Amino acid sequence: MERHHFEEDLRTLKNRLLSMGALVEERVRQAVQGLMERRTELAEEVIAGDQEVNDLQIEIDDRCLKLLALQQPMASDLRLITAAMKINADLERIGDQAVNIAENAAQLLSHPPLKPLLDLPRMADIAKQMTRDSLDAFVRRDSALARQVLKRDDEVDQLKDQNFRVLLTYMMADPGTIERALALILVSRNLERIADHATNIAEDVIFLVEGKDVRHHHEEKPIA
Amino acid sequence: MERHHFEEDLRTLKNRLLSMGALVEERVRQAVQGLMERRTELAEEVIAGDQEVNDLQIEIDDRCLKLLALQQPMASDLRLITAAMKINADLERIGDQAVNIAENAAQLLSHPPLKPLLDLPRMADIAKQMTRDSLDAFVRRDSALARQVLKRDDEVDQLKDQNFRVLLTYMMADPGTIERALALILVSRNLERIADHATNIAEDVIFLVEGKDVRHHHEEKPIA
Repeated sequence: MERHHFEEDLRTLKNRLLSMGALVEERVRQAVQGLMERRTELAEEVIAGDQEVNDLQIEIDDRCLKLLALQQPMASDLRLITAAMKINADLERIGDQAVNIAENAAQLLSHPPLKPLLDLPRMADIAKQMTRDSLDAFVRRDSALARQVLKRDDEVDQLKDQNFRVLLTYMMADPGTIERALALILVSRNLERIADHATNIAEDVIFLVEGKDVRHHHEEKPIA
Repeated sequence: MERHHFEEDLRTLKNRLLSMGALVEERVRQAVQGLMERRTELAEEVIAGDQEVNDLQIEIDDRCLKLLALQQPMASDLRLITAAMKINADLERIGDQAVNIAENAAQLLSHPPLKPLLDLPRMADIAKQMTRDSLDAFVRRDSALARQVLKRDDEVDQLKDQNFRVLLTYMMADPGTIERALALILVSRNLERIADHATNIAEDVIFLVEGKDVRHHHEEKPIA
């Protein structure tokens, strides 16, 4: 196959990854909205929609394998394609976390509301933005943008720790809140994991662009 | 480079993956032992040892990239190498979960013991065995063994749900147990995630051997 076709295939691959990113971001948005507005049907949509995410992941993985097999790409294209495979896996796991949030939301909505959603909506906004920025950084080969994503990960971790402490005091003060507080702790961790996946993507981008491995210089903090 | 060297490089790659598997399995074992025997120093060792796991992951990833770049392998070798990259990533995440368990253990050990460790040691045994079997299945191209790993994942999920229910009743009955029960819930989830990573590896092996995609036919259950 000619170079011309190869370039076109790479462009298609990038576009499919962007679609995958948009899809899982939308799922995260829906799951959190369902929780905030107490709309069970939104949570159910997210859970039912997971197959679409999974199908798209398999399609993208197939594209990557075929590009590797048919084109025998050299150095920089090779790195691009293997990065795409890793990014695809992280996006699929973000989709899984959206499902987990939706499941926790569904469980919460079967109880009367525990007032405060604390910083969960803000955490969700940051995690979604990190996901989008990490993908934009990939498509534009923009390692400066990828580095900004890494920085925001600490912010999410701090919010998670803060949520945890507040919810712990709730549970201690009133055991009647335990189940709901637990579900919110789990949602907070789901959001933290989304930010972690965006961080993985950003690290892959930096490796791709700068050939420099930044993985593991950004270790997880002790968990709450 | 000749076919002969290529075969040798593939053998080395498999051996390094087995070393990685043995290393993270040992870390899981240590973290759980630290928790069971209340030995903080074991937990600390696991936390301090994470860099070794990370370094080995990067080394293996490099080997894969070089094999892909230099050898331009065709179909089946290509699948073997991309599977190795994915398996390597899952093993590194198992190492991360060992660190998470160690951190939760360290936190637990700063309090007087909450008697029951419930099914945690059993969950840990199953998760370690799943990890080992999935890697053996990879090296021996044994998809039957990989399928056994998939089956055991349900067992771990059930144990996790059961632990969750018991710990919830503890917390409700005595708010003084909340912090410790929470830490045990988190350990239980860490072990479940290890089993999930072993499941990912087993699915990669089935895809490698049978060319059949079993990912996502094995969906996550609603979480506790």
